[in-house]
This record gives sequence, C-alpha cells and structure tokens, in this order.
Amino acid sequence: MSMIQPVRGTRDFYPEDMAFRSWLHGKIRSVSEAFGYQEYDGPFLERLELYAAKSGEELVKEQAYVFKDRGGSEIALRPELTPSLARMVAQHGKAVLLPLRWWSFGPFWRYERTQKGRSREFFQWNIDLIGVDTPAADAEVVAVGASLLKAVGLTPELIRIKVNNRRLVESQLGNLGISGQMLGKTFQVIDRREKMDAAAWRAYASDQGLSETQLEGLEEMLGDLNAWKRSEELVSFFASTDALGVSEFVEYDPTIIRGLDYYTGTVYEARDVAGNHRAILGGGRYDDLVSAVGGDPISATGFAMGDVVFQLVLEESGALPEIRSNPANFFVTTFDDESTEESMRLATELRSAGFRTEWYPEAVRLPRQFKYADRQGIPFTLILGPEEIQNGTVAVKDMHTGEQENVAREELITYLERLL
Amino acid sequence: MSMIQPVRGTRDFYPEDMAFRSWLHGKIRSVSEAFGYQEYDGPFLERLELYAAKSGEELVKEQAYVFKDRGGSEIALRPELTPSLARMVAQHGKAVLLPLRWWSFGPFWRYERTQKGRSREFFQWNIDLIGVDTPAADAEVVAVGASLLKAVGLTPELIRIKVNNRRLVESQLGNLGISGQMLGKTFQVIDRREKMDAAAWRAYASDQGLSETQLEGLEEMLGDLNAWKRSEELVSFFASTDALGVSEFVEYDPTIIRGLDYYTGTVYEARDVAGNHRAILGGGRYDDLVSAVGGDPISATGFAMGDVVFQLVLEESGALPEIRSNPANFFVTTFDDESTEESMRLATELRSAGFRTEWYPEAVRLPRQFKYADRQGIPFTLILGPEEIQNGTVAVKDMHTGEQENVAREELITYLERLL
Repeated sequence: MSMIQPVRGTRDFYPEDMAFRSWLHGKIRSVSEAFGYQEYDGPFLERLELYAAKSGEELVKEQAYVFKDRGGSEIALRPELTPSLARMVAQHGKAVLLPLRWWSFGPFWRYERTQKGRSREFFQWNIDLIGVDTPAADAEVVAVGASLLKAVGLTPELIRIKVNNRRLVESQLGNLGISGQMLGKTFQVIDRREKMDAAAWRAYASDQGLSETQLEGLEEMLGDLNAWKRSEELVSFFASTDALGVSEFVEYDPTIIRGLDYYTGTVYEARDVAGNHRAILGGGRYDDLVSAVGGDPISATGFAMGDVVFQLVLEESGALPEIRSNPANFFVTTFDDESTEESMRLATELRSAGFRTEWYPEAVRLPRQFKYADRQGIPFTLILGPEEIQNGTVAVKDMHTGEQENVAREELITYLERLL
Repeated sequence: MSMIQPVRGTRDFYPEDMAFRSWLHGKIRSVSEAFGYQEYDGPFLERLELYAAKSGEELVKEQAYVFKDRGGSEIALRPELTPSLARMVAQHGKAVLLPLRWWSFGPFWRYERTQKGRSREFFQWNIDLIGVDTPAADAEVVAVGASLLKAVGLTPELIRIKVNNRRLVESQLGNLGISGQMLGKTFQVIDRREKMDAAAWRAYASDQGLSETQLEGLEEMLGDLNAWKRSEELVSFFASTDALGVSEFVEYDPTIIRGLDYYTGTVYEARDVAGNHRAILGGGRYDDLVSAVGGDPISATGFAMGDVVFQLVLEESGALPEIRSNPANFFVTTFDDESTEESMRLATELRSAGFRTEWYPEAVRLPRQFKYADRQGIPFTLILGPEEIQNGTVAVKDMHTGEQENVAREELITYLERLL
C-alpha cells in the first residue's frame, strides 16, 4: 500500500527534534523558576465561546480549528492559552493566592498558510503575572523574556523587545479625533502596517474609515520615538526594566499594538533586528479578560512565545548549541544465544548501580553491535562471551580509543564508576 | 456574564496538578533512559486513515475525535501513538538505525463515558522497541514498565503484569475449530469477558457465532494456567523477565488478549491485584503495523500507560509522595514605593547569583507580603527598607523560626549560600 502522509503543518519529533524541544522546555523552566513562576497547563480542548469573548475575529473565525464533538458542542483546539488561564483563575475565585505567577509550555493549533517559520501545530511558552496592575509587573514579565534570550545566547544586537502602551495610543488617537468604534479598527490598521506594502496599507486605512488628515497624523504618530515620555506607565515601566538589568533589550516602538482584542495597557513584542521574521514573542496587559470569562475583575499581564520562529532565529544566529538526546552510559553486547540471559543480568546489574545501560537484544555479529553503539554515541561497550563468563570477567571497550580491558566481575561497578 | 465552563472530560492543571504530571514525566524519563530509550513525539493531529489501517473499529468509529479541517481532510485527534510511530519509522525508511528504542509522554483524546479513572483528554507514556522479533525484546519492554512501578513504590502485592501470546491463543482456538474470520471475533469475545457479567458475555459469544461446544472449550482454555509452557515464545519471555529481575511482577494470564487489532504475538497488561480499575498499562508485539502504513516490514513491541488510572492507583496505595511545584529560594519584599526599584535590583542580584528569587510587585503592608511568601512555601524573605538602604544592609527573615538578621549587602550572597 502507499505511504500514509502526516497532516500538513504538523511536525514529527524524531529524537533529535525532541531533544531541541526538551532543551527549550528546560531553559524556559529554569528562567521562569528563577523569577518564582509555577508551571501549570490548561486543557487542549476548550469551548469556542471562550475565545469569542475577547480574542478577536481573525483568531476565532479564520485560524481556530473548530469542530462539533459527538455530543454536539462546538469545541476549539486551543489557538492560545490566555483565555484558558483567565477561565482557570475565574473558576478558582477566592481560592487563588494573588499575585499569581504561572508559566506553561505546550501545543497550540492555528490554521495558517504553512511556510518557513509557521506551522499549524506549534509549541508555545506562556507566562503571566496576575493580580497586580503596576508597570513594574509588566516589566518583570518582559525581564523574564529577556532572561531567556540571554540564557540561550541571543544578544540585543540580534533581538529587541519593542514596547508600546494602548492607553498612550488611545490618547494619541484621541488627538486625531479617533475614538469609540474607530479605535479598534485603527488598532488593526496599526497592527497591519508591517504586513502590507505602503500603498496597500494606506488603502486599507482609508477603507477602515480614516480620513486623509487622520492618516497623515497617524503616520506622524508612528514615527514619534519620544511619545513614551508622556506616558507615566511607560516611564515607570522603563525605569523597572532598567532596575531588572534588561534595558539593553527593551525599546519604545510606537508601531507596536498587537493583534488580540483583549490588551488594555502596555504591549510588546520581540523582533529580530534584521527584520527577517515574525514576532518571536508577544504580549501585554489584559485587565478585563478574567471578568470577560465570568470571574471577578483581576488585572493581568503576560506573553506567549512560539517555538518555530524562536528555533529559526537561534539557528541563524549560530547560537544553537549541538543538542543531542541522552545516550546510555554503557552498552552491553550479546555474544551468542547461550549468553543472552547472562548479558541481560549484567545490564540489570549496571542499571541497579545507577548507570543508563543499553543492551543489544539479539545475538548478531559483534562488529554490527559495536557500530550500533558507536552511532548511538555510547562511549563504552561491555562484552560477555563464554570465556569471560568462565573467568568471571567482563571485557570493557572504550569506543573512542578502541582499547579493551578485562575487568573482574566483582570490581566492575567500581571500575565503571571511574570511567564516567 | 456567566462563567464559561471547561469541556467535559478535560482537566485543568493548576500548579499542584502540574507538579504531579511533571513528576510522573520525570520518573518515566529516568526509567526509560536507564534502558537507553530516546524521547520522541508524533503530531497530535493525524489523518483518520492512519488508524483505520489497524487500530480496530471501536477506537476509530466510536472513540476518536474526528473532524474535517478547513481544507476538507478528515483529521483525528490522536487516540493512540503506535500508528504515528509506525508511520514515522516507515517514512524514515533506511535512515532509521535499528534496533530503535523510543519513548514519549503526551496528550491523547478518546470520546469515552467520563467516570472515575477516565477522562477524554489524558496523558500517556508510550515506549517501543522496533526492529527485533525476539521474546527477550518483549521482556525488556515489560521490564521497563515494571521498573517504573518499582521506582514509584508500587509492589507486586499491588500490581501484576499479566501476559499472554496471540500465536498461542490462535493455536488453542484452532484446536476448538476456530480460525479465519472467527479468530478476530473470538479475540473480541475474550477481550470483553471481564467487561460483562457472565450471562451477557455468553450471549455475546453466541451472537459472535461460537457454538456451545466452542464456548465450553473457550472457558476451559481461559482457566488453563499452564498453557504458556507449550509456547516457546512465552517460555523464553519468562526466562528473560527473570534475567531482568522483574519476575515477581509478571505472570501468565490466559484471559489477556488486548483490544487493538494490530497485535501479533506476546500481549500484556498491568492490573491492580484488587481488581478495582481498568488496565494501568497495556501493550504487545505488533510485527505488521509498519508495513500496514506503507513501510518495509519491521517487527516491533511496546506498550502505553495512561496517567489517570496510574494516579488513582498510586493515591489508593498510599505510595503517592507529597509533590509540590518548585518554590523560590528567597522572597524579596517591597517596603514602599520609593524603594521598589532598589528591591528589584536586589532580586536581580540574587537571580544572577543563581538563586530562584520571587519579588512582591507592589508596596502593600509587609505582613501581607510575609503571609504570601509563607503560603508559597518560600523559606526566607528579604526586607530592604529606607534604614537598610542607608546602612547598606538587608534584613533576612527565616520564615520557619521567625528570626531576623541584618546582613551587610556585600556579604549577602555568601550569607544566603549558607542558608540553602
């Protein structure tokens, strides 16, 4: 029969790919825990209405994978985590100890055009600080993000976290006579500027209802790099990122607005300085989301970072270390059918002593077994033939030097401990 | 507005729940790596046809979550991992280094009636040994399973791994005149015996086409505890589990057959001895699956273990340790608005020294900050008020004894290192 193909936009994680995913998860864990954040997770399936509350039309109507389950409910594969977080906080009500610092790493799904840097099934780091409305809280979350960049060797020459504030933008747009319903539309206009060429963007702005004068004012506003000084929130935010030692990663950018509807204050995204990729991470303050999903009003701030663009940027920067899965410490060969069980007993003995030990499950020719151990990256192999069994010894072969030594069985563990 | 509810059969992983999931993943990693297995993962979405190949009607038609994506393809949320593994091996073709030892831990979905011990979204450990058809290979995989039981404190008094062999059953059924199409039906009859009461089961067997004589023969066969001695494979298998030091966990059980269609040889499942739960893990040899999804024929064996029943059994046994998420080493309070940034700098300094450090992001009353640190389980808090800032000191409070000491700022890191 013909080969069954994987679903477009999904990825197979062979051990070498999985080693990268685990490495990234470990780095994220260590950075998040350094700031006192706790790991959590939401379900992968949620009711569609959870996202309808605040996530914005593009995400819900165009990108979410939606289906009716066998009971007839409309279910979405989670396209993002923040609404689940808000729901979990809302449902715990008074039982949640605030402020709450939570992080997560897991799969998400969005139906997007597949291309380099995008997949339909991807992993995301989410990190949020709930229950505090100070700019210092936003700054801390951004500092966690910058700390991950540092931890993997990405520098401010390569990556910048660009920051803006929706309340500031709202007041700037107010000066241009843009308010009420036009506000959300103008946010979309700002969000799309870099995704379109200049002419198409101006046409889109005009379609959305912006006058020629407003559009000129908007363009001027998007070029004003000093506007942040008029925002108390941003002034305090930048003082905090300074105190947290990450100011070289962080800068004001009046063009940042973020696409999701639920942001209320400071927003930001990390970008490669060369401008080759989509945002590496994006987030902001969302003070109304917990109440929007039915809880008491609780302020919150946080971001998400996808694995696909992050890995691309890391590869291009040359900062990606050689990551390999964890091979066994020792490899036990199987000399012949008669000694198979004795080899298994030897492997068991080594495992009991705490060594990761792989055993060859078939009495094929020894050279083939050595070749296998070598390709697996296992540094030492043990041979237990009839002669060794009779003499009460084991032959230990160093796969790097090719040297081989006979070791008495009762001294074996001590001998092997010295090799590691 | 009213509270948006989670989807039935899904779970929220609050940090305390997530701590268990991470703990289990860690135990699984350590046991799997002890035998030289490498972590991998498949996609979460697969084409439905992948399961149609060999998984059996119940799983595909009744349990799988299936939907058409926006491109019209029929997609399933993976109900199990083995077909994805077979597809990945088939697709890698000659590039796969055999024997291949792989393990994985991730989410799966089955539309089942929700009750204690079942959820529709659950996690599963999968572990497989590909490319070897020896009974010793089956035994090794079973030994990995038994090693996990041991590692978490579950004993043979609580859990047994019950083993049978489909080739043996086939020959036994042949003696009763059951073969060809009736064979698969009779496997289903055997599989359902414990899920039905005696009368209903006999009626079901008769509906499937078994004669009265065949049914009597079948019942006798299901009670014959010595039949394994007639199976060379099982004799060799039990010798191997003995050599691997797990024989006290393993026993022959003629009623084990497993529900999935793709098994070809030795099959097994782990059960609580008290008989309160569904199988804790289940697996077996499946030598035809890789070729069924389009690859070259490669023999394979492995099992899956779900997290839900495992956690229940662990809780009931009293073996479940107190698992908590990883709290910060130190907690930095915020004395007042003026000293906020100085507190952030202190926290940053501690993190640079390698301490997990949480900071209170708002200048609320100190007792409230202490209470928070205490409930988070953080053992030491640091206070940096105007007096301390002026004197160049930090007050360090032991949350357990309540004692407080003033430490010079330049000696702080050394002082804190001694506390851990």
